[in-house]
Amino acid sequence: MMKQLEKRVEPKAWEGFSGGNWQSEVDIRDFIQQNFKQYNGDESFLEDATPATKALNDRLVALKLEERAAGGVLDADTKVVSTITSHGPGYLDKTLEKIVGLQTDKPLKKALMPYGGIRMAKDALESYGLKLDPEMEHFFNDLSKTHNQGVFDAYTPDVKRARHYKIVTGLPDAYGRGRLVGDFPRIALYGIDYLVASKLDDLDNYGDGEMTDSVIQMREEISEQIRALNQIKDMAASYGYDISQPATTAQEAIQWLYFGYLAAIKQQNGAAMSIGRVDTFIDIFVERDIERGVLNEKEAQELIDQFTMKLRMVSFIRTPEYNSLFSGNPIWATLSLAGMGIDGEHHVTKTAFRFLNTLKDMGAAPEPNITLLWSQKLPDTFKRYAAAVSVESSTIQYENDDLMRKQWGTDYYAIACCVSAQPVANGIQYFGARANLAKTVLYAINGGKDEIGKAQVGPAYEPISSEYIEYDEFMRKFDAMLDWLADVYVNALNTIHYMHDKYYYESAQLALKDTRLDRTFATGISGLSVAADSISAIKYGHVKVIRDEDGIAVDFKADNDFPRYGNNDDRVDEIAVWLVKSLYTKMNKHHLYRGSKLSTSVLTITSNVVYGKNTGTTPNGRQKGEPFAPGANPAYGAEESGALASLLSVAKLPYKYATDGISNTFAVTPSTLGHDEDLQKDALVNMINGYMKNNGHHLNINVFKRETLLDAQAHPEKYPTLTIRVSGYCVYFADLTKEQQDDVISRTFHQSM
Amino acid sequence: MMKQLEKRVEPKAWEGFSGGNWQSEVDIRDFIQQNFKQYNGDESFLEDATPATKALNDRLVALKLEERAAGGVLDADTKVVSTITSHGPGYLDKTLEKIVGLQTDKPLKKALMPYGGIRMAKDALESYGLKLDPEMEHFFNDLSKTHNQGVFDAYTPDVKRARHYKIVTGLPDAYGRGRLVGDFPRIALYGIDYLVASKLDDLDNYGDGEMTDSVIQMREEISEQIRALNQIKDMAASYGYDISQPATTAQEAIQWLYFGYLAAIKQQNGAAMSIGRVDTFIDIFVERDIERGVLNEKEAQELIDQFTMKLRMVSFIRTPEYNSLFSGNPIWATLSLAGMGIDGEHHVTKTAFRFLNTLKDMGAAPEPNITLLWSQKLPDTFKRYAAAVSVESSTIQYENDDLMRKQWGTDYYAIACCVSAQPVANGIQYFGARANLAKTVLYAINGGKDEIGKAQVGPAYEPISSEYIEYDEFMRKFDAMLDWLADVYVNALNTIHYMHDKYYYESAQLALKDTRLDRTFATGISGLSVAADSISAIKYGHVKVIRDEDGIAVDFKADNDFPRYGNNDDRVDEIAVWLVKSLYTKMNKHHLYRGSKLSTSVLTITSNVVYGKNTGTTPNGRQKGEPFAPGANPAYGAEESGALASLLSVAKLPYKYATDGISNTFAVTPSTLGHDEDLQKDALVNMINGYMKNNGHHLNINVFKRETLLDAQAHPEKYPTLTIRVSGYCVYFADLTKEQQDDVISRTFHQSM
Repeated sequence: MMKQLEKRVEPKAWEGFSGGNWQSEVDIRDFIQQNFKQYNGDESFLEDATPATKALNDRLVALKLEERAAGGVLDADTKVVSTITSHGPGYLDKTLEKIVGLQTDKPLKKALMPYGGIRMAKDALESYGLKLDPEMEHFFNDLSKTHNQGVFDAYTPDVKRARHYKIVTGLPDAYGRGRLVGDFPRIALYGIDYLVASKLDDLDNYGDGEMTDSVIQMREEISEQIRALNQIKDMAASYGYDISQPATTAQEAIQWLYFGYLAAIKQQNGAAMSIGRVDTFIDIFVERDIERGVLNEKEAQELIDQFTMKLRMVSFIRTPEYNSLFSGNPIWATLSLAGMGIDGEHHVTKTAFRFLNTLKDMGAAPEPNITLLWSQKLPDTFKRYAAAVSVESSTIQYENDDLMRKQWGTDYYAIACCVSAQPVANGIQYFGARANLAKTVLYAINGGKDEIGKAQVGPAYEPISSEYIEYDEFMRKFDAMLDWLADVYVNALNTIHYMHDKYYYESAQLALKDTRLDRTFATGISGLSVAADSISAIKYGHVKVIRDEDGIAVDFKADNDFPRYGNNDDRVDEIAVWLVKSLYTKMNKHHLYRGSKLSTSVLTITSNVVYGKNTGTTPNGRQKGEPFAPGANPAYGAEESGALASLLSVAKLPYKYATDGISNTFAVTPSTLGHDEDLQKDALVNMINGYMKNNGHHLNINVFKRETLLDAQAHPEKYPTLTIRVSGYCVYFADLTKEQQDDVISRTFHQSM
Repeated sequence: MMKQLEKRVEPKAWEGFSGGNWQSEVDIRDFIQQNFKQYNGDESFLEDATPATKALNDRLVALKLEERAAGGVLDADTKVVSTITSHGPGYLDKTLEKIVGLQTDKPLKKALMPYGGIRMAKDALESYGLKLDPEMEHFFNDLSKTHNQGVFDAYTPDVKRARHYKIVTGLPDAYGRGRLVGDFPRIALYGIDYLVASKLDDLDNYGDGEMTDSVIQMREEISEQIRALNQIKDMAASYGYDISQPATTAQEAIQWLYFGYLAAIKQQNGAAMSIGRVDTFIDIFVERDIERGVLNEKEAQELIDQFTMKLRMVSFIRTPEYNSLFSGNPIWATLSLAGMGIDGEHHVTKTAFRFLNTLKDMGAAPEPNITLLWSQKLPDTFKRYAAAVSVESSTIQYENDDLMRKQWGTDYYAIACCVSAQPVANGIQYFGARANLAKTVLYAINGGKDEIGKAQVGPAYEPISSEYIEYDEFMRKFDAMLDWLADVYVNALNTIHYMHDKYYYESAQLALKDTRLDRTFATGISGLSVAADSISAIKYGHVKVIRDEDGIAVDFKADNDFPRYGNNDDRVDEIAVWLVKSLYTKMNKHHLYRGSKLSTSVLTITSNVVYGKNTGTTPNGRQKGEPFAPGANPAYGAEESGALASLLSVAKLPYKYATDGISNTFAVTPSTLGHDEDLQKDALVNMINGYMKNNGHHLNINVFKRETLLDAQAHPEKYPTLTIRVSGYCVYFADLTKEQQDDVISRTFHQSM
């Protein structure tokens, strides 16, 4: 019975909007479709930042530099546990802020988030010289339990070993799994009361009357969602806003949806806390206000700037181990812009321009992680403007909207975390970190023994004992080892997501999504190019094994040359494709938590460095400890045929299997693109168009010279906000470790197309 | 791989015992079988209490009277949450105690147990003028969650209504569900270290490699069990005992097993926290010590007395609502004695006598809830001694071992709570309270409308609208209403047990049971005799309905006489049988949590009073608000054919369907039994033998006159420890409410056999 929804919304709030299905049920996509206004012009309409924005931004930049100088943390809660309503209002400068709301009561003060793991929370504080309140420690250790403890209670010895020896790494088993994009515009369009009523209806209609475990679980979750919605309302009220009803202005719309996001980051310290795809939605409110004469362009830009500034302020306190995986403290407030509608209309609005303009107004910054949903059909004016921003600040990543729209069947998806698409209304992803395929090659050779730790980690199959590796024998052994890897990896993730739902359920984000969800079970691949090249070496290179006194292969010599991934050579590119399909197929044999659908990614973030550090010498000639290439990039030094050939190799990886994303991080020197700005924009637009046309999924574009990075490494004070794009996110170069800076510097800088 | 168990037990501890399977794996039943020593003599060997016991008992009785005078609670924790290790050691008098260990740090001080429900814990404290620490309230309300909140988050509106209008009552949704009998002797025979090793082995061998939800759940639970075992060891150490290895003396054996029980009651405030069947086990250690010359009979009795005294001290703080259901603050430290082995040998030992002797040594007391497992083949000496104790103190209940042994397939079962058998090694019961069949009769007549609340609670089927109730029409409607009742009841219980496992898992008790469990899904019936007689009235009595202005039936007039249950008249007794089978069969259609097996009981404890209070006038002539008869007893005033006919009616109820127990509470005046003690003993033994031979399951025996109770009601100070048996437990008469005293007084006192 849909009794809850009658006459809940004040109709005045919706005046001026075209009607549609969105008026009778929660449907943001329909609202956008009925109301958005394309913009085909160029950037000339844009305005500068207001004095208020500039003053706030100066204060924030100063605070951030102060924080960096202090080692990463200025202040942190040690006793107050972060919940949606745990803190009173906090401001950067109340008199200047148009969009308000902080994670805690002070700017940049880190929140205490113990639910992922109390030890992680404690260690993180201690690594900054702070001490967790003993009562909190007692409470979470002795009187209640956290996700991390639950996971370790259930892990099999196999999983623990695989984790310890780092054949799987980065598992979200001690912090929030993240990667859920709340449909935050819902608060703005409907107000909290309507959303509560709608969830109450869902609760009334959930389950066929038989209380199985899954019905009970979902019913409890819906109740938690309703609780969260009411808390969001309370939290907003503490800032002086009544969000029970819809937003009536653009300022309110942004503020309302930001409160939803703020609740998410108060509750969860997920690896990625993305904001979603809000540009067209916001634009509709801005356009209405402009039409009504209550907002001008300068003021509109001010709202976008200040909203963006809030996203730049988000951060979590992490442990050193976490930072070594994901350097520069990214939080992936990923902001998806533009893209096409499924009916063939592009979704470029003035607000997409305005978001790009924030990089000029307030300088480059890693967050929000700006993601441009690229289609062949986007207007050239917009494409060229984006290219200009890339040339200037290397802050944008590009993703293939034509591919994703088709794959996901909707134009209302957004990027969660780095590169992973997710339907905003009803899709969620169970984040799954990644497995190391390069190490798996070595396990196949060494009979499951870890080449560094020397322990039996995989199954004790017979190792390869001949002097030269015979390809067929290797492939049989690799196939069996891949079976084991799929097994142990899926086991770990099933455990993690069960426990995360049990101990750290994302009620705030999920309150803002449909109750009936399509879930994907994310997994990831690291070391793809190293594994592909190693198998190619075994197949084509006549590889000799050098073993240590324990019989473990520690070095390899290829007698012959062999094809390497990254040169558009099918002989090896097909091995890379096979690796992706093969691991996917093996993982897909298994039970997957809550009926989720398997997906994988080729994406390492910055963990390519740590993975490489923990992996022995590989048959492709990569030495022990050397970094892998990031994401789906060709191995360092493998590319010998120019940028285009490299891009074509990566574009062969099948998105259908790797719907979590295939990340390609590309660096090119400005002069390679052209000798003036116009030529550079043309070159970039053409390159992206070409890559996407060939079904390439994702491209990080970095435009600078190696010399700039070397200079920035030597003189960080000269480049405080130099940003670069690493695998899946953007980072201040100065925030990378020396090791990671070296890694970035040693990557390929394409000097010819 | 069973690698964990090698050489863990110091073999010296087992010297003097006959070997068997129990030496190579945890198997208490086998140890008992190989070592117990039957006793066929009479009670003449028994010794009195030692001065130490007497002094301790005097102190305890004084404290209890003080507590009663104070309204029920002398002291309670308001901040320290009870866990296995939450408190330092506590004593009644350290210098005198042979068996040590208290729930908190002081005798009778109540523990704070919030996990079942923080509001319940708070309300309980407040009803005694105490205040829950605000920080704890914040923890359990805002930062974590309790069983009660989980349950209410998932309950359907249907369940909430059924609960509110009390057609199902007493659901364990705000406190521990209880009814798990830990195999406490395991600690004594093996020591904690061996048990930990054994559980680690189980963890190694749990799951086939596929991490489904149920494998993950069980693996986490095993880890929790191991944590609990280690905490039990720590707690024992705080009392100066190292229980890592087996007990070496009788004192240690009792102390070790009591530590296991103590852990259970520190962790759980279950409605019933039973101690199990420890008499033959303890006897083996006592006999060994006596043989070794390190213990004499006086000392043996002292150990049993002091152990029993500890069981008498257990209590939990409850809310007034809880107390109205289960009066006198029972905790069902049910102690099962005697019984037969499955190979035909009786298990009567001297220690069974010693436990009965505690009632003489220390006076009558409600706890432990002494339950005699009766077989035709028990030695007459023992039967007669038990009968003598019954005549003297009305503290014993009798259960049909011949029936239960066969049904459960083992002789190592014990009674959990009132009357429900449970295999000690590998059986658990999910406690399920009860549903009101008398009210269901009225719902069938009134089309699902509650006759008191007037709300639509059941489905809105067509009510009976004719002046006289037509039997066939009624039965069709009753059948449909019973379907709904089965539905809503099983739904409630599935939710409760899911949430109890999630928020209030019994790791201490379950650590002391097999990992692979046989689970029963308990349900219960109240108002059986009222429902049976009402249906009989409709069938045979030509019942006219009197309706109020809302059309709800508020009174009934039977034109003709009709047969009533309790007179050995098949016409109505078969209705009672049909009711049990029918509800069972309907409930058994449903999904039952964790593959448990349905069981039901006919058992009301003292809730027959509250059930009656909440049920309108019924077609059998019982007036609105009048109590039901307890358990399976015939309705008040129905029995007109003497004790034997009454017993024969109840004995017809099929135990196979009601394996949770069929409780019969029987009162007889001493003079009815005979004019001297010998005749009285004979009469009682013969009566019990006869009842059990006819497959009667359970019998509470009360031997006193109505006049005694009336005098005790008028002059409570004269009878401070007068105990009586109510449905399923024993209680101080003085601790009953006036209403319940009146109920007991109004019951049938059989004055002829």
